[in-house]
Amino acid sequence: MKLINEKITDYIQNNQTFLLMTHQKPDGDAIGSVIALGRGLKQIGKQIDYFMQDPIEQNLSFFDEIKYFNKTENQSYDAVIVVDCSTWTHICKPAKLPEYKAVINIDHHITNEGYGDLNHVENVAAASELIYRLLKQMNIPLDEEMADALYTGISTDTGSFQFSNVTSATHQILAELYQYPYRYADIARRVHHEKSLMQMKMCGAAIENTTLINDATIAWTVLDYKTIHQYGGDINISDDIANIGINIKGVSIGVTLKEVEKDIYRVSLRASSECDFDVSSIAKCHDGGGHNKASGFTFQSNLEALKQEITSKFNEIKDGRNQ
Amino acid sequence: MKLINEKITDYIQNNQTFLLMTHQKPDGDAIGSVIALGRGLKQIGKQIDYFMQDPIEQNLSFFDEIKYFNKTENQSYDAVIVVDCSTWTHICKPAKLPEYKAVINIDHHITNEGYGDLNHVENVAAASELIYRLLKQMNIPLDEEMADALYTGISTDTGSFQFSNVTSATHQILAELYQYPYRYADIARRVHHEKSLMQMKMCGAAIENTTLINDATIAWTVLDYKTIHQYGGDINISDDIANIGINIKGVSIGVTLKEVEKDIYRVSLRASSECDFDVSSIAKCHDGGGHNKASGFTFQSNLEALKQEITSKFNEIKDGRNQ
Ligand SMILES: [Mn+2]
Ligand SMILES: [Mn+2]
Repeated sequence: MKLINEKITDYIQNNQTFLLMTHQKPDGDAIGSVIALGRGLKQIGKQIDYFMQDPIEQNLSFFDEIKYFNKTENQSYDAVIVVDCSTWTHICKPAKLPEYKAVINIDHHITNEGYGDLNHVENVAAASELIYRLLKQMNIPLDEEMADALYTGISTDTGSFQFSNVTSATHQILAELYQYPYRYADIARRVHHEKSLMQMKMCGAAIENTTLINDATIAWTVLDYKTIHQYGGDINISDDIANIGINIKGVSIGVTLKEVEKDIYRVSLRASSECDFDVSSIAKCHDGGGHNKASGFTFQSNLEALKQEITSKFNEIKDGRNQ
Repeated sequence: MKLINEKITDYIQNNQTFLLMTHQKPDGDAIGSVIALGRGLKQIGKQIDYFMQDPIEQNLSFFDEIKYFNKTENQSYDAVIVVDCSTWTHICKPAKLPEYKAVINIDHHITNEGYGDLNHVENVAAASELIYRLLKQMNIPLDEEMADALYTGISTDTGSFQFSNVTSATHQILAELYQYPYRYADIARRVHHEKSLMQMKMCGAAIENTTLINDATIAWTVLDYKTIHQYGGDINISDDIANIGINIKGVSIGVTLKEVEKDIYRVSLRASSECDFDVSSIAKCHDGGGHNKASGFTFQSNLEALKQEITSKFNEIKDGRNQ
């Protein structure tokens, strides 16, 4: 494994006060890497504050360290350390930034802008992999919560070690994490399976309202306004609902339409791994974004017209390929 | 890692013809370990036949090696090799067994009876872990299909590396498997997520028919006869349906009732990891089996009486604990 930028580890060694931040709507990797880094640096006597968006998502709120989030803030820091965030704009930061001598940027998104004074950007499965290596490089041992945090980060960013971002190095780190006392089975259940009753019911309604169109190559899932409100609002729409369609055998494209306000739909598009149709091409036509396997946009007006549009674009590409 | 019983590797080296078998209703670990072992032994010039129950489950039918299953059978073999099967009775075997000089038994269930002439029984996450180590010990390199097969075995028997049977050694093996060319992300989607439309709809119906009882500590899921037949019969009830209940936050016991014939229910009981109520105690009262976190039985007659029984037994234990 290559070294984490030694200018970063040197800077940390030689300085004292750090403010830790990450992206808005922090996910398991963001929270896991912040907590592991924060606790680790405290162990070697550094003064650490956390500026984090709250509240923390229910499934990720089990870390003891969360009680220190947003509790103190200095006028100035030796450095702001940002993890798991590809752009400066997307960082969750205080309305008025404190003073700081340097920005340290540690991230695994190849699109990272390199906004730090010191940067380590490397294309690995999770920012937590980088934090694990940084701590090891600095000879900082893990305590149980740090191990749990790194596990959470890697497990959530890899879909429980399933995505194509997993490498031999990912499992090598896990092999080492399993040498600590752990409660990983409980964490896995919590972050990958546990739902509130309303989230579970929303999921059931989404399955019920899924139909297959275009010779069963496209799955069309609609959660209408009434259904969403019957199950407590769009906060109860879990991420996995967008994948229901492409988890149906034979389906190439999954379209999920969530009527978040009357006649206004949040649309999620997913393409199966075998499918070479770029769903972001449709999202872009509607001012949305994302990438070729997963993208989204907001849509107002005629669902039948949208169905027509997606179907015909998909068939065009498919027919072109078959000629 | 400790060595695989060297009497087994010596016997294989010094003999020529082997019949491979595993348990009835072969799962991912059974099929994965049989295929990896069979292809590996062919590489070093052994003659391998497979006796396997068919058809192979749809989600596991992607291995090329399956075309050799049940294709040839000798009158006699140097050994029968049985993997992933804890008892002699539970092996899927020919009506009339061929002659053989020895039975080799390789398994990871600690309850294994030791029915072989040569046995290697070790409490690891999957039989595929043992086959990986055996192949390595015999210096047999993996080809792509063998790596896929071992991945499938380990991934399915660990619920995608989530169960408490996972160890550092499990991830160490995975780190090595990721050094081969692989398609693990596709396999993971296939074995953990892909469902037919009818399986998906059955799952949606199960969520719809889940209610919480006893102050939301027990989830009660009923798939009645009509619903099961609406979605193509009980063959379309996927294993994950039994876990819907305990995946709801706050639930300790999940009870799933499948009316497989008119007024005859297959009952699955699950306990959450935090719950110390032994669900097999209920299953045993109804001539069922299983273990303390997952068990099942067949039930005929009054569902309300069963609900009463489970609730009061659960509350008794819980109240006893709180005193
Ligand atoms: Mn990340
Ligand atoms: Mn097994």
